[in-house]
Amino acid sequence: MPGQGMLILISGPSGCGKGTVCGRLIGQFPVMRLSVSATTRPPRTGEVHGRSYYFMTREEFEKLAGEGGFLEWAPIYGNLYGTPAGPVMEMLDRGEDVILEIDVQGGLQVKERFPEAILIFLITPSRSALEERLAGRATESPEEIRKRLIWVDTELGFLTRYDYVVINNHLDDTVNRIKCILEAERSRAYRFKMPEGW
Amino acid sequence: MPGQGMLILISGPSGCGKGTVCGRLIGQFPVMRLSVSATTRPPRTGEVHGRSYYFMTREEFEKLAGEGGFLEWAPIYGNLYGTPAGPVMEMLDRGEDVILEIDVQGGLQVKERFPEAILIFLITPSRSALEERLAGRATESPEEIRKRLIWVDTELGFLTRYDYVVINNHLDDTVNRIKCILEAERSRAYRFKMPEGW
Repeated sequence: MPGQGMLILISGPSGCGKGTVCGRLIGQFPVMRLSVSATTRPPRTGEVHGRSYYFMTREEFEKLAGEGGFLEWAPIYGNLYGTPAGPVMEMLDRGEDVILEIDVQGGLQVKERFPEAILIFLITPSRSALEERLAGRATESPEEIRKRLIWVDTELGFLTRYDYVVINNHLDDTVNRIKCILEAERSRAYRFKMPEGW
Repeated sequence: MPGQGMLILISGPSGCGKGTVCGRLIGQFPVMRLSVSATTRPPRTGEVHGRSYYFMTREEFEKLAGEGGFLEWAPIYGNLYGTPAGPVMEMLDRGEDVILEIDVQGGLQVKERFPEAILIFLITPSRSALEERLAGRATESPEEIRKRLIWVDTELGFLTRYDYVVINNHLDDTVNRIKCILEAERSRAYRFKMPEGW
């Protein structure tokens, strides 16, 4: 994607703090957009269609998937989640950087299609910290939390296929570390263009 | 080199500011060592043996090269330059990061031997800025400056084989950018070790 915006994937197990970190990053760069995912799961309290997610019926979702309209999609815990391709491609073409908050396997799907996407894996400092965060946000049933924790070991198995791993202990440190990673990525030789005067 | 220090190569054409940048970086990290090169060229005013360079006769140099004692070596402008391997390996094994200030082709030789070495290519903002810096430091004859400028286009041709390119305009910005690159490299997934508690 030379000359285009950077596609940045913030990923990690449920409860690792992806959403909070993405929200903070968006405010700190002039040209940074958050991709909005589509899902068939019901909205949680306070979630807004088109901002939190595009909420779709299963029929609507499967139709768009059939047309190749997703960068990636997958069933997760019985619901379908996906990243509509159109808006992301338009933003990148305009030179805007795009952040995707995405589950671990979805991140790897996108990386296959866009090898230059920057994959960042967030983890909590410990397993117990993850359990506490999941329990603390009280948006899943105990049964859903149990399922998510079983899944974590599988997700950690994909960690080495990511580009970067960041331990999300203190939010400010995490955000600064990711800002540094993006600064460094802007200096990658394959993105470099000789300035005028050379 | 898992579990070891990082090997960082600061490279670029003569006059790009490698030496100044390396000097500043060394002071800013607790565990950062500057590799000392060997050369057969005569000392310049103020240069100290064992700190600026290991100054060697051509015979001494060629003997060490024949024993495989250099990470890389090459003739440059009629003199021999090289990086003695022993001290670098010892520092990396102790977990210390090592900076090499190195010419462009030497950097690529080291990268072949250590694919995980971090190669940073420094350039001035323009060709005229490079000419001014070479003329300004007054350590080379006009004939040597002319040779170095002819060589620059060849060196720029290797730029895409580097990992990062940094434009050395304002020293503080350059140093901060490189610090960011090193922070990011510390977060690379292949260097990651799961913390205790996972």
